[in-house]
Amino acid sequence: MIGEKEGAGVDYLAEERAGAQFDLHSMKLFLAGGQHAYDVSKRMADLVANDPVFAKEDRVRVPRKEHYKNSLRKAGHAWKTILEQGLTEEESMKLRAFIDEPTYSDLHWGMFIPALKGQATEEQQHKWLPKAYKMAIIGCYAQTELGHGSNVQGLETTATFDASTDEFVLHSPTLTSTKWWPGGLGKASTHALVYARLITDSQDYGVHAFIVQIRSLEDHTPLPNVTVGDIGVKFGNGGYNSMDNGLLRFDHVRIPRENMLMKLATVTKEGKYIRSNKPRQLGYGAMVFVRQGIVTDASIYLSRAVTIAVRYSAIRRQFGAKDDKPEVQVIDYRTQQYRLFPLLATVYAYRIVGFWMKWLYEDVTERLNNNDFSTLPEVHACTAGLKSMTTAITADGIEECRKLCGGHGYLCASGLPELYAVYVPACTYEGDNNILLLQVARFLLKTLAQAGSGTKPVGTAAYLGNIQHLTSVNCKVSRGEDWLNPSVMLEAFEARAARIAVGCGMRVAKAPDSESAFNELSPELVEAAQAHCQLIVVSKFIEQVQKDIPGEWVKQQLEVLCNLYALSLLTAHSGDFLATGYLTSRQVSLAKDQQKALFSAVRPNAVALVDAFDHTDNYLGSDLGRYDGDVYTHLYKNAWKDPLNESVVTEGYHDYLRPVLKQQLWGPASKL
Amino acid sequence: MIGEKEGAGVDYLAEERAGAQFDLHSMKLFLAGGQHAYDVSKRMADLVANDPVFAKEDRVRVPRKEHYKNSLRKAGHAWKTILEQGLTEEESMKLRAFIDEPTYSDLHWGMFIPALKGQATEEQQHKWLPKAYKMAIIGCYAQTELGHGSNVQGLETTATFDASTDEFVLHSPTLTSTKWWPGGLGKASTHALVYARLITDSQDYGVHAFIVQIRSLEDHTPLPNVTVGDIGVKFGNGGYNSMDNGLLRFDHVRIPRENMLMKLATVTKEGKYIRSNKPRQLGYGAMVFVRQGIVTDASIYLSRAVTIAVRYSAIRRQFGAKDDKPEVQVIDYRTQQYRLFPLLATVYAYRIVGFWMKWLYEDVTERLNNNDFSTLPEVHACTAGLKSMTTAITADGIEECRKLCGGHGYLCASGLPELYAVYVPACTYEGDNNILLLQVARFLLKTLAQAGSGTKPVGTAAYLGNIQHLTSVNCKVSRGEDWLNPSVMLEAFEARAARIAVGCGMRVAKAPDSESAFNELSPELVEAAQAHCQLIVVSKFIEQVQKDIPGEWVKQQLEVLCNLYALSLLTAHSGDFLATGYLTSRQVSLAKDQQKALFSAVRPNAVALVDAFDHTDNYLGSDLGRYDGDVYTHLYKNAWKDPLNESVVTEGYHDYLRPVLKQQLWGPASKL
Repeated sequence: MIGEKEGAGVDYLAEERAGAQFDLHSMKLFLAGGQHAYDVSKRMADLVANDPVFAKEDRVRVPRKEHYKNSLRKAGHAWKTILEQGLTEEESMKLRAFIDEPTYSDLHWGMFIPALKGQATEEQQHKWLPKAYKMAIIGCYAQTELGHGSNVQGLETTATFDASTDEFVLHSPTLTSTKWWPGGLGKASTHALVYARLITDSQDYGVHAFIVQIRSLEDHTPLPNVTVGDIGVKFGNGGYNSMDNGLLRFDHVRIPRENMLMKLATVTKEGKYIRSNKPRQLGYGAMVFVRQGIVTDASIYLSRAVTIAVRYSAIRRQFGAKDDKPEVQVIDYRTQQYRLFPLLATVYAYRIVGFWMKWLYEDVTERLNNNDFSTLPEVHACTAGLKSMTTAITADGIEECRKLCGGHGYLCASGLPELYAVYVPACTYEGDNNILLLQVARFLLKTLAQAGSGTKPVGTAAYLGNIQHLTSVNCKVSRGEDWLNPSVMLEAFEARAARIAVGCGMRVAKAPDSESAFNELSPELVEAAQAHCQLIVVSKFIEQVQKDIPGEWVKQQLEVLCNLYALSLLTAHSGDFLATGYLTSRQVSLAKDQQKALFSAVRPNAVALVDAFDHTDNYLGSDLGRYDGDVYTHLYKNAWKDPLNESVVTEGYHDYLRPVLKQQLWGPASKL
Repeated sequence: MIGEKEGAGVDYLAEERAGAQFDLHSMKLFLAGGQHAYDVSKRMADLVANDPVFAKEDRVRVPRKEHYKNSLRKAGHAWKTILEQGLTEEESMKLRAFIDEPTYSDLHWGMFIPALKGQATEEQQHKWLPKAYKMAIIGCYAQTELGHGSNVQGLETTATFDASTDEFVLHSPTLTSTKWWPGGLGKASTHALVYARLITDSQDYGVHAFIVQIRSLEDHTPLPNVTVGDIGVKFGNGGYNSMDNGLLRFDHVRIPRENMLMKLATVTKEGKYIRSNKPRQLGYGAMVFVRQGIVTDASIYLSRAVTIAVRYSAIRRQFGAKDDKPEVQVIDYRTQQYRLFPLLATVYAYRIVGFWMKWLYEDVTERLNNNDFSTLPEVHACTAGLKSMTTAITADGIEECRKLCGGHGYLCASGLPELYAVYVPACTYEGDNNILLLQVARFLLKTLAQAGSGTKPVGTAAYLGNIQHLTSVNCKVSRGEDWLNPSVMLEAFEARAARIAVGCGMRVAKAPDSESAFNELSPELVEAAQAHCQLIVVSKFIEQVQKDIPGEWVKQQLEVLCNLYALSLLTAHSGDFLATGYLTSRQVSLAKDQQKALFSAVRPNAVALVDAFDHTDNYLGSDLGRYDGDVYTHLYKNAWKDPLNESVVTEGYHDYLRPVLKQQLWGPASKL
């Protein structure tokens, strides 16, 4: 009845696209980070989209075992493709990203190998890396345990040195010491980088890393005294369930002494523990690199959700038909704009911060190479805070976009449920978001204290050297347009962040026990950290739009988004700005009005601004977010692929429905 | 290695329970709504927990077809149990609730039958209800379409009267007219209550309801020219996927004229449309009843999440070990309390509002019987707003509780992912939450305008008759404890709600086109509606704790929770209170300090306050939320039940992992 071809080739969003006011291709290049990155992305996205092995549509419908097996197939095929086509590391990373399904090799390449590089000696690297590079071994990163995640120092697994055999004995002394969560551990890995308490001469030297083979390289069976398996189903239908997050227990498993990663500390044959004199801070560069990737990923994930929600909001019409005109496009409602457009601006903001963090990584790497550790605390706080903020906002933002799609967003066919389910762990891994914010707060208090005794704060904390001014000045805004002045905006965010931090600092300083005062004040400290992080993003966005940006009206669009981003934060957190006395309620009201003017400026460009993310339909995986806007045809067509529709009369009818309808609930034949 | 019996019988939360300061049993009775309701709940919960047919643990692991078949089995078994044990309607409802799995019979009993009662004539009821009551037919409620959800007046399905055969012809003229979402439609129902545009004599009389048989009562095949199926997988692994939300298309399907539900309008044999003179408002009582149920359900769903998060937060320890003392219980961290305890208080608040809404339903029913429609607009706005607020906060609150459980909350074994997935549709069904808030805002503006011309506002809107005072007075709080004064609290919420409403009202009144001003101002109007709804809950909570409540220290606990609930709202929305000029920043700061004092008061009672919800382990379905606190044993034990753990060497090893490890990616045998 509904033909396959209905609407084929028609662009239901053409009118929207025609109304855009900027050069789309230039914006695409800007967002990709230049021509080269754009080309690589495009090539890899197409490669994935055109290879049927990477098809992902049915992953929400197949049972987990099949889903997992498919992910092994895709990972293997990806590896084959990489070798066959001689892809570069950059290309390989993009390829894996576009396959868009968590799998064991993510951990092998993303955690196991980098950790070896960071913590193994040259000799150890020489031994292990070649095998890892050709995937003759598959490694995972076995840190967290059933009882300990965030508190790494609390890990319970032990590695006790036995000098008589020159071996470490790995052991899981308690139930809670069971390794729990490592991706790729459950069913795939042959080796694990195990974090365990190093004990030698009856002394506990704390947590160190050890390479432990856990499965046979011949038949993949677990080695003796190793218990290993999958930890079970996770949130979502497809989601992260393609990953074999695993559990691991050791019953006195012996490994050679040289399997301890010895770059930062060694144990001698005699069992003597020796800490190396290499600065431990050398590892920080890698951390900045990882977090820069997380911030960029946040932008990408959020951009997928925003693309779906913007396109569908432009297609969907509801209410307001009059004079033979069709109903109103949902995207024209202010309530929709109020929730959706700030998220659109956030994608751009995070992309720009991601670019800046690449620079930060290069800067800190160069400094470390010159033994300059001066910026480390600031860089650490900044990246911790940005990781926390961007992942939290992105997770919530994806879910908000799902809700903005109305009921249909609840269907897996919208692509949004699985996008949320697969993304939300980013709030927990690589540092729990709440704990990271408290680390930022600690840094802020320390910086304030040091600034008081004459040490000038640097980088993203530089404004804390300007406390006198920021705590006494008031906002100058008297008309709505004043809010479009970058220095006005910047000062507002600086003043608010500074005042919250100073308020917390004074209360902690006055307290007799600063540790318990810190706990007592932690909700406010979290606010201080958030205000600091928001300031960083706003200031980097402002810096960016003050530079030259090629492409007709591209810079102007970015200015609109920059102002919208900042004002949306300001109005959402108006309580802070008002409570610190920096703003008056009239100035907040002007900000709200100005925000609406910006909504109107974004509106005609909204579809083009998401087109600029350049996602293929394959990567989006959403009937609602299709490029051509042919939403309903595809929702309808794809519904028929559900397993429940395989039979016209449902499988349970004879056993469980007919007896109800026929009042035959009892009797020998009844299965009820 | 880890024995089954480890920890069996031990109460790991015993110390927490011993420290509680109130009479638990009395609190249970209070929350249940009295001894009778308590007894019924307890009996039904145990009945479900002890019947293996209702076991639900594996539902996140089985493929959808099996999951669906299981739900048919459970529904049939429930029906058999109800008949066998002669359960009352109250008991049957509770039984179905504790089975805790959406299924077709929910819609049959919850929508199809009530709609028949409300919209069918006596004669029609006589014909259809007996069959429905014995489930000789299974009905669903087919209103929403692919293209229209919220805007019922925009539905496209047509029912055209053909006088020559005395029949209506049901037809789906467009793709978007496909019925889409009705629960129970996809695979189970034999009949549908179809909402379609009534056309007779070429005139469109708008949307009316028709009973349409869609499947054979003999073999369950779809009737001719009926296309029916399931709409596909939804959010979550188990979640709502036990429900066959369906699609339905008609190709000129004929039904007898008398299948139109004719209580409010009829079509004669000759095709004449006649509206009955029965007041249409009579249906409002049912709506109040349904929404009262939704608010109570919100409280129950949120209570499950809060129970899990509170118990696990008391078990889980992280950081802060010193002097041989164990690490700190997570529940002792202020950041945890700051996010968790307000949700605990919210459960109590919503329960109390649910009780009040029962009274409201009785009151409005009595009024309607006496043709008194005076309170209807207020009741409508109040119930719409409470439905919207409680479902939105509950959905977000469940997800917040999941996050408060750290990484383990992401496992389905925590029970939380599926609780979220199954609950979140409540934000969309029975009125989209955002549209409902705009309805509330419309009511507020109208009430203000009427109050200006002398009509006294009633019920929950009565405070809008006191605008002069509320817009001029300032808060009297000068010490933290002042916030514990109920009249101080009430005035704060009244003043804030009144001021936002008045601000919006003035701007809309000044605008030349009030409809476009309404859209322009809708973000602020949503805030006005939210402030109004929060005031309702705060005021009902305060009213309740001013009454006598039996049980030692029960009332005192409720007072603490009431104050915590109100202060948490106040501090979270401090921007409103500050911007309207009612509060000073110092008063907000005092509120925050007072809130922390309340956290400390809740802390020793937290576990008992969730025990008071009286959930069985079966109903909670969470390894993290177990009554005995034996969390890790069960997480570990249950992980082994995952399908991936059925084989030691994973199924895809030979085809997809071994070729990678052995560099055998090419060649005739390769499947990569």
